[in-house]
Amino acid sequence: MAIPPNVSPAAFNAALDAWRDAVGPEWVFTSEEDVALYRDAYSPFWGEPEERVASAAVAPATVEEVQAVVRAANEHRVPLYPISTGRNLAYGGSAPIYSGSVVLDLKRMNRVLEVNERNAYALVEPGVSYFDLYEHITKAGLDLWIDPPDPGWGSVIGNALDGGAGWTAYPFRDHFGAHCGMEVVLANGEIVRTGMGALPNSKSWQHSRWGYGPWVDGLFRQSNFGVVTKMGFWLMPRPEAMMSSMATSEREEDIIPMLDALNLLENQHVVNGSTQIFQGGRGPAGSAAWTIQVPIYGPEKVVRAQMDYAKAKFTAIPGVKFVEGELFRTPLTPEQLSRVRLVNFGIPNLSTFAMLGRNPGAPDPAGGHIGFSPIVPRTGESLLEFKRFYAENLPKVTNGENLGITGPVYMTCWERTLVCLIMFPIGRDKAMNAKMRHAFETWVRLAAERGWAEYRAPAVYQDLVADTYSFNNHALRRLRETLKDAIDPNGILSAGRYGVWPKHLRKT
Amino acid sequence: MAIPPNVSPAAFNAALDAWRDAVGPEWVFTSEEDVALYRDAYSPFWGEPEERVASAAVAPATVEEVQAVVRAANEHRVPLYPISTGRNLAYGGSAPIYSGSVVLDLKRMNRVLEVNERNAYALVEPGVSYFDLYEHITKAGLDLWIDPPDPGWGSVIGNALDGGAGWTAYPFRDHFGAHCGMEVVLANGEIVRTGMGALPNSKSWQHSRWGYGPWVDGLFRQSNFGVVTKMGFWLMPRPEAMMSSMATSEREEDIIPMLDALNLLENQHVVNGSTQIFQGGRGPAGSAAWTIQVPIYGPEKVVRAQMDYAKAKFTAIPGVKFVEGELFRTPLTPEQLSRVRLVNFGIPNLSTFAMLGRNPGAPDPAGGHIGFSPIVPRTGESLLEFKRFYAENLPKVTNGENLGITGPVYMTCWERTLVCLIMFPIGRDKAMNAKMRHAFETWVRLAAERGWAEYRAPAVYQDLVADTYSFNNHALRRLRETLKDAIDPNGILSAGRYGVWPKHLRKT
Repeated sequence: MAIPPNVSPAAFNAALDAWRDAVGPEWVFTSEEDVALYRDAYSPFWGEPEERVASAAVAPATVEEVQAVVRAANEHRVPLYPISTGRNLAYGGSAPIYSGSVVLDLKRMNRVLEVNERNAYALVEPGVSYFDLYEHITKAGLDLWIDPPDPGWGSVIGNALDGGAGWTAYPFRDHFGAHCGMEVVLANGEIVRTGMGALPNSKSWQHSRWGYGPWVDGLFRQSNFGVVTKMGFWLMPRPEAMMSSMATSEREEDIIPMLDALNLLENQHVVNGSTQIFQGGRGPAGSAAWTIQVPIYGPEKVVRAQMDYAKAKFTAIPGVKFVEGELFRTPLTPEQLSRVRLVNFGIPNLSTFAMLGRNPGAPDPAGGHIGFSPIVPRTGESLLEFKRFYAENLPKVTNGENLGITGPVYMTCWERTLVCLIMFPIGRDKAMNAKMRHAFETWVRLAAERGWAEYRAPAVYQDLVADTYSFNNHALRRLRETLKDAIDPNGILSAGRYGVWPKHLRKT
Repeated sequence: MAIPPNVSPAAFNAALDAWRDAVGPEWVFTSEEDVALYRDAYSPFWGEPEERVASAAVAPATVEEVQAVVRAANEHRVPLYPISTGRNLAYGGSAPIYSGSVVLDLKRMNRVLEVNERNAYALVEPGVSYFDLYEHITKAGLDLWIDPPDPGWGSVIGNALDGGAGWTAYPFRDHFGAHCGMEVVLANGEIVRTGMGALPNSKSWQHSRWGYGPWVDGLFRQSNFGVVTKMGFWLMPRPEAMMSSMATSEREEDIIPMLDALNLLENQHVVNGSTQIFQGGRGPAGSAAWTIQVPIYGPEKVVRAQMDYAKAKFTAIPGVKFVEGELFRTPLTPEQLSRVRLVNFGIPNLSTFAMLGRNPGAPDPAGGHIGFSPIVPRTGESLLEFKRFYAENLPKVTNGENLGITGPVYMTCWERTLVCLIMFPIGRDKAMNAKMRHAFETWVRLAAERGWAEYRAPAVYQDLVADTYSFNNHALRRLRETLKDAIDPNGILSAGRYGVWPKHLRKT
């Protein structure tokens, strides 16, 4: 049996006993084969000493059990790493940041507590996946959509807390931004409800976001300040129609006015879908230097008016063509469903694995990827600079080898934000993984010199990326450390997550 | 000269000397007449011992000066109360929560640091008013709107931090929600930049909201955790048109389907303006039980399609009429400007004072008001319950007297949120003010029993309202206190704000 670092066997056994009492012995996992299930199949350090692995796992089924588990961990100073469904692939999966932590597996807490159609929201537990929520809504016949990321087996809460985004419409696509109200178990075992949930008999917990006084919800995003046990989400009433068109240009420099047009349209909220920018042509757009995908959701006549307006803005740019897409009325017919990307219509699925040439059912996947995804200022000039930056530096980060790194093929747009992706294949070949790590680490440093940094990072690189956010001698990190020490003085929760370490593990 | 509580004359003099060195002696105010300018003219305790008053004031002009002032206050344990322009009327104005605090007056920090038209944002200092920002944008000829509250002399930052809202379109109306990136001086004098601003040479500070890792911005809303010295705001590109219609019904119970329709329209983002619900008729709507104001902003053809859709949803309810308003193309003509409510068109002004029968130019205003504004679940049933609740309890809270309390005449709608206002006149008559206080305090308690509480409260009632958010033995407040003790261990910043007191002043 593995033992967490800095924990005596006696203390660990005492914690295990307390957990077995709290959750039942069948939900405390210590055998090598059980614990191996929590490994990150796509770890860039797979099978190497630096791979981050769990020592054990415990799976409570209720908030009270979470409280008991956390209290015992606090008493015996055992590091915990809460996960919801553990499907955070490419970002560490269900493996802890601090090797030897015990995974606090919340996937048994999988109740959809409420879906309110009139006020269009859901209240869920951490183990609820996008599939679960979709199934619940479909069975109940509610006229609501969810906003799935790809793939759909992940946790609705976990994805939001990790800063994930989906593929339908603004503002629902910003999963953390679309939440309303949380219940959190703190390191001391206390339950806190945020927003209107702090009112004992509140009926507006999922109606109103900010509540009264300092808003603490943000502290639980990409963090280690508590265990979120319930979270509300605003849902989109089913839009009556969706139409996605493409703006294209043959000329490299046209991305500057094209992105200005897109910014105007999105900032006016005339275009509300998951816009993307592709290098080159796409489908009917044929040969092009740039293609911008312009999806719009809403009532049919509104969508048509919005699309006409978007078309006018794009075609006012000399050389830009606008290829109007098909308008889909919802719900789609089976024939239509067979030829669209389902996530764009609120339907969770796993097709992204096929798209990436992978098989999620394989017990030991042959490989995956990690991504370097810096946020770049949302202008055409910055995008062109990023493209040049990528081309100029690719030979440098790979020592001239072709490692299969791809990017920036497409750029994804969130609210006001441009994310430029570079993808790194990760597999079982240690020498190749080492080259990928070198390339990744070099990109992080080179990008930071330009003022670009990631919004999210693989587990093993969360420190590296946190280091780039260094304004005023890492003032923001130091503030977070101060908060961490206050709220989790024994440092038992998710040590190291997003670069925040508890005092006893902190590098000076 | 007044001395702050628990501060020795020697310590206070040392702080004053340090401040005079830091900001220049002319910007440190200790005379009775200077300090009186910071009184809350609408205090419900005006002229009584419980009135919250400042002991002195200090007005830095730069971030570095703020740092120096805060450091000296920390050294000498002098309580500070930061204000931006101090126009927070009805909520305490520029007077501190903790009587005897020194006002840290930021109104000299009034630079508009950047307005970016292409990416539609502004970066401002705390002393920038809505008038200032409007003037800056207008002079520069930028095609952007601001979202003014009424009135326009307040601080853009101050209003956002206090949870204020404005009168144009979603999402810009939610002033805290529309911010992107902050610079904060902590109690220890350190400068923190949040979001992408934590990257030393970031060019996306106002592009991307969440940054990397735990999001701390929420901690500085309605709080006392730091002094915000810069803040970015997303602005609305000028909408090409605005049209506001009215849905009305003669029947009391029709508010149930009417509010369902409004919720659907707003949750779909088909209706994006500052919707309001009035009891009774309005203008051309004549006699009605309910009137819902439905404003929509956007390109003309889009607005017309959206309004047609809204009309169809409302008129599908038997008995509901829909009175279409005039469509205004922007910019408005002088004739049009003379007959519209300017804040709905992004133009800050002071007409709200005339509307309330007050004169903002009078040095000693004859009276003002405070408001009790609980958040009620956004359903017609809840609204009817609130109306009955008000009628049933008004005699109770006023002991049967007519005190001029008004409400709920109109309900204001924010994103997913329904706020029901009750207004209390406050003046110079101490006996009358005492009756108002009794009424206010009683409303707070009665409403909390129903699960309704305020999103914001007058300075003197921030504790009372905080007490209602008591889930799990005030777990949220205790969490905030833990954070407060960590980030401001000497408790020098805004003691008592929104019910959060530093350790040495905390009631057990």
